[in-house]
Amino acid sequence: MNTYGKQFRITTFGESHGAGIGVVIDGCPAGLPLDTAFIQQELDRRKPGQSKITTQRKEKDEFEILSGVFDGKTTGTPLTLMIWNEDAKSKDYAHIADQFRPSHADYTYTEKYGIRDYRGGGRSSARETAARVASGAVAKLLLHPLGIRIQAYVSQVGKVKLEKEYSQLDLSLTENNIVRCPEPAIAEEMIALIDATRKNGDSIGGVVTCVIKGTPAGWGEPVFDKLHAELGKAMLSINAVKGFEYGSGFAGVQMLGSEHNDAFYTEEGKVKTRTNYSGGIQGGISNGADIYFNVAFKPVATLMRDQESINEKGESVTVSGKGRHDPCVVPRAVPIVEGMAALVLADFYLRNATSKLR
Amino acid sequence: MNTYGKQFRITTFGESHGAGIGVVIDGCPAGLPLDTAFIQQELDRRKPGQSKITTQRKEKDEFEILSGVFDGKTTGTPLTLMIWNEDAKSKDYAHIADQFRPSHADYTYTEKYGIRDYRGGGRSSARETAARVASGAVAKLLLHPLGIRIQAYVSQVGKVKLEKEYSQLDLSLTENNIVRCPEPAIAEEMIALIDATRKNGDSIGGVVTCVIKGTPAGWGEPVFDKLHAELGKAMLSINAVKGFEYGSGFAGVQMLGSEHNDAFYTEEGKVKTRTNYSGGIQGGISNGADIYFNVAFKPVATLMRDQESINEKGESVTVSGKGRHDPCVVPRAVPIVEGMAALVLADFYLRNATSKLR
Amino acid sequence: MNTYGKQFRITTFGESHGAGIGVVIDGCPAGLPLDTAFIQQELDRRKPGQSKITTQRKEKDEFEILSGVFDGKTTGTPLTLMIWNEDAKSKDYAHIADQFRPSHADYTYTEKYGIRDYRGGGRSSARETAARVASGAVAKLLLHPLGIRIQAYVSQVGKVKLEKEYSQLDLSLTENNIVRCPEPAIAEEMIALIDATRKNGDSIGGVVTCVIKGTPAGWGEPVFDKLHAELGKAMLSINAVKGFEYGSGFAGVQMLGSEHNDAFYTEEGKVKTRTNYSGGIQGGISNGADIYFNVAFKPVATLMRDQESINEKGESVTVSGKGRHDPCVVPRAVPIVEGMAALVLADFYLRNATSKLR
Amino acid sequence: MNTYGKQFRITTFGESHGAGIGVVIDGCPAGLPLDTAFIQQELDRRKPGQSKITTQRKEKDEFEILSGVFDGKTTGTPLTLMIWNEDAKSKDYAHIADQFRPSHADYTYTEKYGIRDYRGGGRSSARETAARVASGAVAKLLLHPLGIRIQAYVSQVGKVKLEKEYSQLDLSLTENNIVRCPEPAIAEEMIALIDATRKNGDSIGGVVTCVIKGTPAGWGEPVFDKLHAELGKAMLSINAVKGFEYGSGFAGVQMLGSEHNDAFYTEEGKVKTRTNYSGGIQGGISNGADIYFNVAFKPVATLMRDQESINEKGESVTVSGKGRHDPCVVPRAVPIVEGMAALVLADFYLRNATSKLR
Repeated sequence: MNTYGKQFRITTFGESHGAGIGVVIDGCPAGLPLDTAFIQQELDRRKPGQSKITTQRKEKDEFEILSGVFDGKTTGTPLTLMIWNEDAKSKDYAHIADQFRPSHADYTYTEKYGIRDYRGGGRSSARETAARVASGAVAKLLLHPLGIRIQAYVSQVGKVKLEKEYSQLDLSLTENNIVRCPEPAIAEEMIALIDATRKNGDSIGGVVTCVIKGTPAGWGEPVFDKLHAELGKAMLSINAVKGFEYGSGFAGVQMLGSEHNDAFYTEEGKVKTRTNYSGGIQGGISNGADIYFNVAFKPVATLMRDQESINEKGESVTVSGKGRHDPCVVPRAVPIVEGMAALVLADFYLRNATSKLR
Repeated sequence: MNTYGKQFRITTFGESHGAGIGVVIDGCPAGLPLDTAFIQQELDRRKPGQSKITTQRKEKDEFEILSGVFDGKTTGTPLTLMIWNEDAKSKDYAHIADQFRPSHADYTYTEKYGIRDYRGGGRSSARETAARVASGAVAKLLLHPLGIRIQAYVSQVGKVKLEKEYSQLDLSLTENNIVRCPEPAIAEEMIALIDATRKNGDSIGGVVTCVIKGTPAGWGEPVFDKLHAELGKAMLSINAVKGFEYGSGFAGVQMLGSEHNDAFYTEEGKVKTRTNYSGGIQGGISNGADIYFNVAFKPVATLMRDQESINEKGESVTVSGKGRHDPCVVPRAVPIVEGMAALVLADFYLRNATSKLR
Repeated sequence: MNTYGKQFRITTFGESHGAGIGVVIDGCPAGLPLDTAFIQQELDRRKPGQSKITTQRKEKDEFEILSGVFDGKTTGTPLTLMIWNEDAKSKDYAHIADQFRPSHADYTYTEKYGIRDYRGGGRSSARETAARVASGAVAKLLLHPLGIRIQAYVSQVGKVKLEKEYSQLDLSLTENNIVRCPEPAIAEEMIALIDATRKNGDSIGGVVTCVIKGTPAGWGEPVFDKLHAELGKAMLSINAVKGFEYGSGFAGVQMLGSEHNDAFYTEEGKVKTRTNYSGGIQGGISNGADIYFNVAFKPVATLMRDQESINEKGESVTVSGKGRHDPCVVPRAVPIVEGMAALVLADFYLRNATSKLR
Repeated sequence: MNTYGKQFRITTFGESHGAGIGVVIDGCPAGLPLDTAFIQQELDRRKPGQSKITTQRKEKDEFEILSGVFDGKTTGTPLTLMIWNEDAKSKDYAHIADQFRPSHADYTYTEKYGIRDYRGGGRSSARETAARVASGAVAKLLLHPLGIRIQAYVSQVGKVKLEKEYSQLDLSLTENNIVRCPEPAIAEEMIALIDATRKNGDSIGGVVTCVIKGTPAGWGEPVFDKLHAELGKAMLSINAVKGFEYGSGFAGVQMLGSEHNDAFYTEEGKVKTRTNYSGGIQGGISNGADIYFNVAFKPVATLMRDQESINEKGESVTVSGKGRHDPCVVPRAVPIVEGMAALVLADFYLRNATSKLR
């Protein structure tokens, strides 16, 4: 199904080369002032053509409100945002109409549905993430008055890795460069690597790190819908994601419990932990400390070079590298990761309203 | 909520030290012969006290069928399995009734619910996973006639790592040793490390790798409920899990697209890929190749040594290391990972029944 | 939430006087040829201004496909239909901006949301049912190849009642008159009554009866989601509905079991019942016989005369009868009832695909 | 699926002649004192063998708490209640093992599942309603501190009808007689009619009326999940129910809008309506007035006399009238109707917590 969330619930629709991409947000409380400039600003962070290291496809990605707002505020009824398609050159795709591009969804969609919209990947296009960013921006507007701040940045491109942890960085510098890495020197290296990869008609992977500050203690559900399990699902649902880890993550498996346990103490009446290997989540529920996690993105499958593959009849074909695509998705993935994180938190915020008698 | 799955749906209930742990399975098709010996065998793989490197708490973990079976077959109505508690020494926990144990769920449950069952972790106890293994066994019985085989094993304990990939291993050897690592020499090292850690009153983390063979192409949903996103959520919902990666995973971020893309070819009329960095999933949907993934487990939080912490009033206390616990969860986590994977696949099997007109 | 259905699932959005009314259909199998002329024809049966006994508000109610169709067939991805608003005179409503109209949703929306879109009832407007008719038409297209036929008609207006049962009527005559009653003489009486009521600035209630032929035995769920329980909920969710009964209904309470029981017999290898007080549903599941039910509609709340009421401050006000409205909803409710019935059946059709091992 | 409710959610399981009947309540807020005596008292109102006009099957219907309670309060985790079966004489049913009893679920279950537990109706047995009464009692405990009172009574048996409306009755007299009708003289007539019907080996239908006082304004959802639509579904999901109407109901179709509209006025700062044809619900949302509705029950299908039918092979058979059954379900249906109403309201109570920014 194309729905995410239980109480702050989004349903996305639309294809890369159809009328556009839309999202229905159901469950947003009434009375929220809808800052449309902010939503547009978030969309601008994701939009194509924003720099030399992203796809050169030009779309303004402007959105229209189709329902749910009156006098500038949400009404509690479904809030629908639509991003119309503009630069949809369907003919760009005629040559791959019956081809299965390597590591794309062409083959699997055909197996599942018996039919697929081959234009630009159709529904499997990363263009669908515009709807996530738009609805994620609404979620951010809901969370903002609670003091919750969500900030993501690029921490790795190929082998170029930002070794510092988030707490050692000045995250306010993230948007200062086109790769969205808060350490200027590393950012330069990343940009150079992506640019070289692009010129080579190739693509490369990367990692986005996300930090959430200000989440109150007590959010999340104890068993299946653990806070980090939902964050993980949300991140893994983004195109090209191959892995998710939070807190100590994969590195934590090498630690001893006596090192890894986060000792509690009290400071000015507030419960704190001396370390934060838990990543702000214990037993699936937030403990008030910073939540942080990493998201691994593979190199995108579309290359500007020829590749061997097969067509729908199973015959060998050469897939040629036409079109306009990102050599590396992580710079544009930053607002997507933030948006999905906001959607997860907004949902738990509403779900938590009835956890106990008040 | 305590429910997982949309069509093959489980709801678990019960606490560590209450009457027992149970699970209601709703949506299992009628007519499935219920091999109770197999279900018990799976529960035995998870049960405590099975070797020197697991907790010495003794529970037989025998299950009872409360509903949903007639003449040895499922009836299509809710199938309820109950595992009664036996060795529930509540007094073991009186000393921590008002303490927040480090890196446990004590503090977060109190914040969320205002109340908690402190006996053995209550609902946050890993004992809840018995219900997952039991229902996962039913899911395996549903998948077995389709030729689907799910096998997990321990690939890392602390720094002791099995470097070979799954395809280089003889997975039939997995159950031959108490740590469940298919490479005997590495298994010995792992066992020694866990044993030494146990003697030291400490705990250590590890990685479980899981391989699924025989999944037909076309399972999974394209946007939010991608097959790997649901696998990720299911794994991250298991106690102590900190990370999930599938296919090329975190290592894949360093690759170029030209290396990472899995070229299609046809062999005897079947579509195959020359490599499998996709991990058997493309665009969120299975492509028929092996599905494989890694799950990172942190060192368990319960230690057999004193730790500094606070109580409910915020006062400093010393949490003493009593009770009986696992020094490393991964050996017993193997059937849990398999069970959750089976639940995910069973759900997608049923969900896929209506993807296209047939 | 604004979603109906579990597997054939619709989410509607939009207000009476906003951009328009839309619906996202999620879960429709891929490969269904989308007969757009048929969908428009169904919308035409509901549209305002179609006769002298309906509202004179003019809307063409033409729809646009925003997503989910490729080469004339559904793709399995969300199918979005949009009906743009045209004749939305917001100024018509300025005079009631702070008034609570009697028996409308003005007061309850204000209590629930703290805000409401007062233009034309906003989200509570019956205009929302256009989305139900459009998506119901898609459901009909899915059911049609299975031989399922859904036909509703007006069986009562005020005290003018069609005493014959559905099996005594020629339902092909239903669309021959503007009130949609298959008995011409009774239809004339109904039309005269509605017309007189309209001229009097008043409104009047009525009953729509619906018959479903061709449902296979075995559809429905046994406990909460009984086939008739879902039909009941679907009908009661239509604006102005006050009651639902199926089969023998309220009259059945006066019968003895020996009269009411439907005796089984076999004819040409097919299981049949000698009577059909069960209304084609036993234990919540279809038995293959005709399904039939009645839906009671109250007189609509908007009158063309002055009424006493209060405003948001609790002060007495006179609500004046402006605007253009239906004096009786049942003629236009016929396609809405059919559409909702189609949505219920389409959902159970898909849900039933996995009831047993096949 | 065997689940009802979105936030106060119950999942029932169990068969008439298996281990017992159970219910998992998920979403009940933590901290609710669980008055077990009250729950048992409600179960006693439903239990068989309570008077000469109910089935003579003897079951104590005592319940056991399997999970979710600590120190007498709910913990926010799943609350599981189990009612073990005692008097389950499976041999009573051997003679109908391959027969399709008229107007029972035997045939439809077989069509749906290909298998059925024929003992006592298995899952289709009205014994399942014990789980609804038990969980409904918990819902009542949640609603009670809010001042909400739910009271049902028998208003019709066969042709014996209580003509007075609820507001003219002293509902405190309801439990004073075995048929649960608050008007003693009518109650006598009803009892006599049921007793005569029983002696004749026959059964008869009836109506239960339910009144809910004290619901705050603003509960319910505007489109599909209207408060009365959920009440309708909940009631129609009870065994043997054929119809539901609320407020003016079917009688309202004969009224003019000018009669039917409920005029608002203000009294001591509170919004009230001069009449209540709306039944306390406008636009699907409560307006603070009394909610009232009628539920029609057919005569039960099990008769103490021979009936013609067929078996699984389609051959003619005589179904003989053995066993112990109710000649009329409405006396025991009173607590079931109340319980389901409580479940609906508890769910909307929790759902409403996030309707607007607070």
